[in-house]
Amino acid sequence: MSELKIDTRLWSSKARNLSPYVPGEQPQHDNLCKLNTNENPFPPSPKVGEAITKVLEQQADDLRLYPAPESDDLRAALAQLYDLDVNQVFVGNGSDEVLALVFASFFLKERPVLAPDISYSFYPVYAQTFGVDLIQIPLEEDFSIDPDAYRQPCSGIIIANPNAPTGLLLSLADIRKLAGEHSNSVIVIDEAYIDFAQVEAGSADAQVSAVSLINDCDNILVTQTFSKSRSLAGLRVGMAFGNASLIEALTRMKNSFNSYPLDKLAQAGATASVLDTAYFEQTCQQVIDLRQSLTAELTALDYQVLPSHANFIFVRPKDGNASAVASALREQGIIVRHFDKPRINEYLRITVGTAAQNNRLIEALQALQKNAEAVTD
Amino acid sequence: MSELKIDTRLWSSKARNLSPYVPGEQPQHDNLCKLNTNENPFPPSPKVGEAITKVLEQQADDLRLYPAPESDDLRAALAQLYDLDVNQVFVGNGSDEVLALVFASFFLKERPVLAPDISYSFYPVYAQTFGVDLIQIPLEEDFSIDPDAYRQPCSGIIIANPNAPTGLLLSLADIRKLAGEHSNSVIVIDEAYIDFAQVEAGSADAQVSAVSLINDCDNILVTQTFSKSRSLAGLRVGMAFGNASLIEALTRMKNSFNSYPLDKLAQAGATASVLDTAYFEQTCQQVIDLRQSLTAELTALDYQVLPSHANFIFVRPKDGNASAVASALREQGIIVRHFDKPRINEYLRITVGTAAQNNRLIEALQALQKNAEAVTD
Repeated sequence: MSELKIDTRLWSSKARNLSPYVPGEQPQHDNLCKLNTNENPFPPSPKVGEAITKVLEQQADDLRLYPAPESDDLRAALAQLYDLDVNQVFVGNGSDEVLALVFASFFLKERPVLAPDISYSFYPVYAQTFGVDLIQIPLEEDFSIDPDAYRQPCSGIIIANPNAPTGLLLSLADIRKLAGEHSNSVIVIDEAYIDFAQVEAGSADAQVSAVSLINDCDNILVTQTFSKSRSLAGLRVGMAFGNASLIEALTRMKNSFNSYPLDKLAQAGATASVLDTAYFEQTCQQVIDLRQSLTAELTALDYQVLPSHANFIFVRPKDGNASAVASALREQGIIVRHFDKPRINEYLRITVGTAAQNNRLIEALQALQKNAEAVTD
Repeated sequence: MSELKIDTRLWSSKARNLSPYVPGEQPQHDNLCKLNTNENPFPPSPKVGEAITKVLEQQADDLRLYPAPESDDLRAALAQLYDLDVNQVFVGNGSDEVLALVFASFFLKERPVLAPDISYSFYPVYAQTFGVDLIQIPLEEDFSIDPDAYRQPCSGIIIANPNAPTGLLLSLADIRKLAGEHSNSVIVIDEAYIDFAQVEAGSADAQVSAVSLINDCDNILVTQTFSKSRSLAGLRVGMAFGNASLIEALTRMKNSFNSYPLDKLAQAGATASVLDTAYFEQTCQQVIDLRQSLTAELTALDYQVLPSHANFIFVRPKDGNASAVASALREQGIIVRHFDKPRINEYLRITVGTAAQNNRLIEALQALQKNAEAVTD
């Protein structure tokens, strides 16, 4: 392919001013140890493949028809999972699409949106796309979120919980406080990784998900995804939970962009995933166990490891030279994520892999450390 | 479900001002004769199901991974189909999503967009969503498009070709003329139904698709879909073809909304569909043949039938009482589309169905006519 000389003459001013999101790379090599985009190390529930195969075998003809525009069955399954009314549930083409619709539906151009300075890097992109101001509120020294720092006029607040790339968890008490102090703003809690925290916390008596607050707080909107805890990044399904009036705004916005974002197979597969609770809990627990082992091993190698509630860990090598570690690992086919940004450029975000992947990582880091000692000696 | 009282207090001004698109209904009844949303009466190529099943059997584990963000294999197959470079091809979650990104990427707030007054009803919705003025240019008396009527300043023109709901085709000479007269505006040709016209026209010597113009005219962007001629409305895949700089704008806009709009299974299924040229041509030809029979039979029943180049026909009953005909058909489980709008409220848009569906429609209309005569007698 020849080098493209881009001519922006026919672009809209909006298109000219974009700084698009850059997803973590998806290299296609054999024997790669891919620990850079927080995918689940386990496959999805076998029920997912079975449900999709059943559609293909029994209703292949139906692919010629438009899918259910509001994904009714999937929303009903999610409503039942969380004991909600179906009109408190929205679904979309991955939580990225849901978040785009959230920015368009709730955030005003006249008042800014508040978000942590270190968080999901798509938030500033959405803000630019929809022309809203984003004020980034610095995390504390220990990377935690202080709700008091958000006490300023805004049209909304968006917080990833657990936050990425730190993995730290904000308490429901703090979220409730934010919602109470900003009763005329929408508080969006992006719970892409919450299931790993919720399964760890255990029973319903120990709620960590803000879904448990939406009946009390009409201004809390919670987004989640099938891409992490449900091992379905390849299927593109995300969801939002909130007061029925918030969900209605999202639905109207969806129907002003794209009426049928979820194809028939994705709807069937995602529904089957929701119904297989046992598999879900078992694989989440396995990821949590693997995270704990990985944390212990990295700590033994003198890495500082933040207390993660997600399926990744945020770690700092003793000398802070995270970039060099990432490069050395890449040479051995192990890909981790390094963000070349202020405050976090001495850290690496590492996805929790299978036991074999984690061992390969630890062995590589041990070898690296031995080489460094040999040079120093 | 209780009646929802909508509270718009927390909505953005954008959300409050929307008039979302209302898709044709998707009723779920047995024995329904659904001729209202222009789906293909034939199932998709069997290769589609085979390709998806293969992914599920051989790479089910891969569903845990993000799909290829730029749908490389699918774009390569489409590029080969039309003898283009891959950077002249864009794909999205149905042509509705592609069109939304088109409005955001090319149409300016300072200058209006021009479209026919009778056309795809999502265009005014997109205009409102993205805050651009849409000027609707009246079709001629015979519902044809006069390119000279578009001679006014604009940031873009969008024309469905064949147009919906009329089914009429604009010539490539007219499209080239529009592009030449508006060299600083993007001319979007929405070819959702073009394959039925192209297969009818025959060989490559008789081009009717504007894809054949994009190497000559850097301001023509063509959108197409898998939902009609490829019988894959249930899979949600659409595409755009144009100069590489136009495609780059769409790609940047996509990556500012949602990086991964096409799931792994949709990519595999759509690619298999593109590669099965024989099935595609055969089913398109069957639809064309069925359209011709249906046209003849309706003409015999004294319906005025516009010369359609799509997989639907636009017809006027002799007395112009289209609404009554639609209601009478609905009572017998036959759903056709009636638009309660000026100029076209005496017409019905009827999707070409299977031979059996078309017979059922004709028999119902014959019975209706007999009843009317009996009443008159």
